[in-house]
Amino acid sequence: MKLKIGLLGAGRIGKLHGTNLQNAVPDAEVTVVADPFMNADMEAWAESIGIPKCTKDADEVFADPDVDAVFICSSTDTHAEFIMKAAKAGKDIFCEKPIHTDIPKIKEAIKAAEDAGVKLQVGFVRRFDRNHKTVRDVATSGDLGKIYVVKVTSRDPEGPPMSYVEVSGGIFNDMMIHDFDMVRYLSGSEVTEVHAFGAVLTDPDYAKYDDVDTAIVSLKFANGAIGVIDNCRTAPYGYDQRVEVHCEKGCVQDRNDLENEAFISRGDGVFSAKPTWFFLERYNDAFIEEEKEFVECVLNDKPVPVGGNDGLQPVRIAMAAKKSLDEGRPVKLDEIEN
Amino acid sequence: MKLKIGLLGAGRIGKLHGTNLQNAVPDAEVTVVADPFMNADMEAWAESIGIPKCTKDADEVFADPDVDAVFICSSTDTHAEFIMKAAKAGKDIFCEKPIHTDIPKIKEAIKAAEDAGVKLQVGFVRRFDRNHKTVRDVATSGDLGKIYVVKVTSRDPEGPPMSYVEVSGGIFNDMMIHDFDMVRYLSGSEVTEVHAFGAVLTDPDYAKYDDVDTAIVSLKFANGAIGVIDNCRTAPYGYDQRVEVHCEKGCVQDRNDLENEAFISRGDGVFSAKPTWFFLERYNDAFIEEEKEFVECVLNDKPVPVGGNDGLQPVRIAMAAKKSLDEGRPVKLDEIEN
Amino acid sequence: MKLKIGLLGAGRIGKLHGTNLQNAVPDAEVTVVADPFMNADMEAWAESIGIPKCTKDADEVFADPDVDAVFICSSTDTHAEFIMKAAKAGKDIFCEKPIHTDIPKIKEAIKAAEDAGVKLQVGFVRRFDRNHKTVRDVATSGDLGKIYVVKVTSRDPEGPPMSYVEVSGGIFNDMMIHDFDMVRYLSGSEVTEVHAFGAVLTDPDYAKYDDVDTAIVSLKFANGAIGVIDNCRTAPYGYDQRVEVHCEKGCVQDRNDLENEAFISRGDGVFSAKPTWFFLERYNDAFIEEEKEFVECVLNDKPVPVGGNDGLQPVRIAMAAKKSLDEGRPVKLDEIEN
Amino acid sequence: MKLKIGLLGAGRIGKLHGTNLQNAVPDAEVTVVADPFMNADMEAWAESIGIPKCTKDADEVFADPDVDAVFICSSTDTHAEFIMKAAKAGKDIFCEKPIHTDIPKIKEAIKAAEDAGVKLQVGFVRRFDRNHKTVRDVATSGDLGKIYVVKVTSRDPEGPPMSYVEVSGGIFNDMMIHDFDMVRYLSGSEVTEVHAFGAVLTDPDYAKYDDVDTAIVSLKFANGAIGVIDNCRTAPYGYDQRVEVHCEKGCVQDRNDLENEAFISRGDGVFSAKPTWFFLERYNDAFIEEEKEFVECVLNDKPVPVGGNDGLQPVRIAMAAKKSLDEGRPVKLDEIEN
Repeated sequence: MKLKIGLLGAGRIGKLHGTNLQNAVPDAEVTVVADPFMNADMEAWAESIGIPKCTKDADEVFADPDVDAVFICSSTDTHAEFIMKAAKAGKDIFCEKPIHTDIPKIKEAIKAAEDAGVKLQVGFVRRFDRNHKTVRDVATSGDLGKIYVVKVTSRDPEGPPMSYVEVSGGIFNDMMIHDFDMVRYLSGSEVTEVHAFGAVLTDPDYAKYDDVDTAIVSLKFANGAIGVIDNCRTAPYGYDQRVEVHCEKGCVQDRNDLENEAFISRGDGVFSAKPTWFFLERYNDAFIEEEKEFVECVLNDKPVPVGGNDGLQPVRIAMAAKKSLDEGRPVKLDEIEN
Repeated sequence: MKLKIGLLGAGRIGKLHGTNLQNAVPDAEVTVVADPFMNADMEAWAESIGIPKCTKDADEVFADPDVDAVFICSSTDTHAEFIMKAAKAGKDIFCEKPIHTDIPKIKEAIKAAEDAGVKLQVGFVRRFDRNHKTVRDVATSGDLGKIYVVKVTSRDPEGPPMSYVEVSGGIFNDMMIHDFDMVRYLSGSEVTEVHAFGAVLTDPDYAKYDDVDTAIVSLKFANGAIGVIDNCRTAPYGYDQRVEVHCEKGCVQDRNDLENEAFISRGDGVFSAKPTWFFLERYNDAFIEEEKEFVECVLNDKPVPVGGNDGLQPVRIAMAAKKSLDEGRPVKLDEIEN
Repeated sequence: MKLKIGLLGAGRIGKLHGTNLQNAVPDAEVTVVADPFMNADMEAWAESIGIPKCTKDADEVFADPDVDAVFICSSTDTHAEFIMKAAKAGKDIFCEKPIHTDIPKIKEAIKAAEDAGVKLQVGFVRRFDRNHKTVRDVATSGDLGKIYVVKVTSRDPEGPPMSYVEVSGGIFNDMMIHDFDMVRYLSGSEVTEVHAFGAVLTDPDYAKYDDVDTAIVSLKFANGAIGVIDNCRTAPYGYDQRVEVHCEKGCVQDRNDLENEAFISRGDGVFSAKPTWFFLERYNDAFIEEEKEFVECVLNDKPVPVGGNDGLQPVRIAMAAKKSLDEGRPVKLDEIEN
Repeated sequence: MKLKIGLLGAGRIGKLHGTNLQNAVPDAEVTVVADPFMNADMEAWAESIGIPKCTKDADEVFADPDVDAVFICSSTDTHAEFIMKAAKAGKDIFCEKPIHTDIPKIKEAIKAAEDAGVKLQVGFVRRFDRNHKTVRDVATSGDLGKIYVVKVTSRDPEGPPMSYVEVSGGIFNDMMIHDFDMVRYLSGSEVTEVHAFGAVLTDPDYAKYDDVDTAIVSLKFANGAIGVIDNCRTAPYGYDQRVEVHCEKGCVQDRNDLENEAFISRGDGVFSAKPTWFFLERYNDAFIEEEKEFVECVLNDKPVPVGGNDGLQPVRIAMAAKKSLDEGRPVKLDEIEN
């Protein structure tokens, strides 16, 4: 018995989920895809992977009895609304992050899903990366004793277009948000205070949009641990994604996946491949794992691995970090609506 | 325009190719699968991935006008015969290794494909592994100058059942055959002489079948290089697959892929994951790449990357190695029919 | 022509320098050692490595015409005074860090050496570690373009006795001081602002002395870069000493030296050795390099690699970090006397 | 109480041992050095490290009551003779490898030492390398069960002068001899049969001296294991020294020491340092360990770690390997005088 899925949005991330669901998640099938800009190319893509129905109207998906669950991969401003519509229609929900950038809207959406008794999983895909997951499993297992320090390094290979920066909400919202989720995941605890330093180093245009391209955010956690995240929007050697948890009895960390494991020894040194290029390469398997877990949770009525509150908290931390950067002081999470 | 493929054999390797072709090779579709032991389970598998037709009779596949090419994944003793039938029917051919263990039969099959003007690709999948391929590309590029030494280490995580050992033709035929292909690939040259030492160390039962479980084969190449392969049928830490080419200006080698890139530092040492378990894990992506290249070569009428002669030569080297082991002396390839 | 050295202090670090100077620095010879607690054991040590004279009175060293230069390895509170006496006597000076914990005293000592025209090198030994030095050379060479982020991780294998914590001046003065030097070295720039988070996690007794055992300090640099240091007083896997500089065109970092390069692959994972235990093991070669460079600078009248101002600035940064921790706000270096 | 040592030979290896004994082995002192070519430079070197006496006449050393033990670092053709003289004089003996290239001479020298009741340690320094030693300790501990395969890779950064090749006895005697010792050490077993392939690839001049520059020698061991050594006289990336023992329950191996542990990630890949350049760099600490163990064994009357038979067996294996190469067949060690 396969889970019948309606896909909302056929942009890059929508196509990624749709293709994976059809080809790599045996217990799922996409029965319809909706996109307001539905065109011949999208229809050809849908046909090529066996999605039988295409529409411009998301409401058709919510009304479709042949849809058990939805994947919300549409533009960010539609997420909360679509969650509420799907909840009302009794569909289980996978929603790409973020739910919204406005906290009351996020809470309203979460409440709608709760009230309707449908699943709501938020798309923090890095939790499903085999490297980060191993670090987290070890760190939170207790085998290494108490957690002391949580560290995350995250660098994109190249910056986004300025048109994106203009609307993205800034580095804490569009990039470090994943790392705010990651530190909660790794520590098994909530962030209580943050301090941010930021700089415009890679391209002066970031300053035009009141944004930075490089940032270091220190954190305090409810369990007593402290931590730090460093982000940079450019790293010409590829996507740099490393996490580390230092504990009482040891330290667990991960390295980047490399393009390959060959290495060349020459008179001028030893050469090896660089990290995989970007999130599509690095988190390819994690996306599939994320989709499989959602499908399995729905089919077997289990709690989802990344719930509504996991969608809310990173947004709050991002707000606190931005406030810290703006006001030049550490900011307690208590200062941000919860 | 997709390449329509008839799949011959629905055992482990047949299912692997079939599933990949349906889900991961966009330019291919499997239109029929034949297996003499076709049963409800196989049919369910075929249906689940959208193969529309199942049969017990391979001849239906050869006669099917809706089949452009065949994947021969049936038992080894049928390979040569199926190649000849497919050639006669004008179907392009992907054949799992080995074509046959008998040299005249191999040559007959190769000739049939050549005469019919159909493609014949042999399934030496390791050539498509991104690590080994990088080593080979560097070694044969000339960047490191002349090739001096070629080394291959290959260990299986656990030995096969004795029922397999009884019929497999021995370690040189069933296991080191891949490494004989690999040294030809890495060196870009032909093997001219071999010497084998072997031992029964993991399980005394290998001796019953005139086989060994551990072997070291030294090699000479036509280009002047020398080399060595070491094999062992058991390695409890997983599939050990490493190659190395030492050259005039440097050395290129690869490491194993690991299950993950996390590592734990503790008072008693640093712990990391072991190599991926076996060929299904390690060569998963290589199988897809192999299939894609075959499909692309057929669709665009390009020479296949692993042809008939590449199927023949490793069998000859295996024979020479066995002869060396039996007679306690180095054996020249000239002594083996070509 | 060897440089004749008077050694002040025959405790752990004094013996280390003395033994190295006698055995591993061919252009130096220790002609006298002074220690107020001079005893038979110290005399035996001196004799065993060929130091001809022992005394309890440091003033004998300053007055000794057979002394060209002094190594100040006595207790911290004597450093500034001994610098001034050595300067007055015209001896070149190597002084273990810190010069003093009081800024006016540090400045007075530096000025004395300058006025007397003698060399003054401060013992920040990590600059001479081959790994960190390579990172710094690459980062400041310009090959990687502009510096964006500087990171230092530093963890001791085990905490000091509480009797030391009581008088040490706290984690920023007794431990992170090395890292404050390191970030100046790696960035080639001055720190302009810091923010500190700290925690008592390894042992509640640190709180008694108004100290923390775990700290994360974010930094801003005059060249626009930002950075972070994380310290922890315990790491059961050994001395953890890693640095990283992320730049416009790449990132340069180092790994820990390990006890050995052997590794074991087993069914439960891959095991390798842990980092070298503590600073005596990790920085053994760096101490020798540091001593050689001092001796060479004196003999050839070249500027020392770590001068008086390099002794002063880390103390200022430590003060700013402590102030930040105490006051819960970022602190600009301008707030600290210079 | 220090061991008083007479040093025979003040060439490169003699100076190395002499300097280490004076500076790095606290329980030893060199009281005299003899070299038939003793000159002002050698005397200056001796004086600089505190050796009080120099002579051209080795017999003075044997007659010197102020000498407890000798280090034989003279030319190879004097080793056996000097062992016999030292034995007669009741001096304990450390002798650089090889004792001799002629088996009866080796046996005569060993017997002389045994009859005189003096220690005889042979200079196979690689056994004291911390990496190889760890591999051996794990492999022979039984923790990994039965030994299956022993592998050694050994490449020099650059070939020796042809004047050396002319007299050295060939690659098996002057280079692979260390690896023949290593496989005995790693396996804890004796070699029973060898097969050699060789080639002249780096410089055609090797052929003039009936030598090869690249060789692969397969081996059988008395404990049932099999093994392989590969040698090449050139490796522009530095001294390549890796060993591996594959066992029933796992595999233990080592990596090369690198010049440093820094690495640079850039758009074109990740760059790290190459292996340490040659044996003086790689085995620097091993030489000191070797000397310390000899001194300790003499002072405490313990068996030496590398005895006379350990000096004899690698010579026999080298002879067998040369015979195999010459005759194109595997050679049993039984064929060589023991």
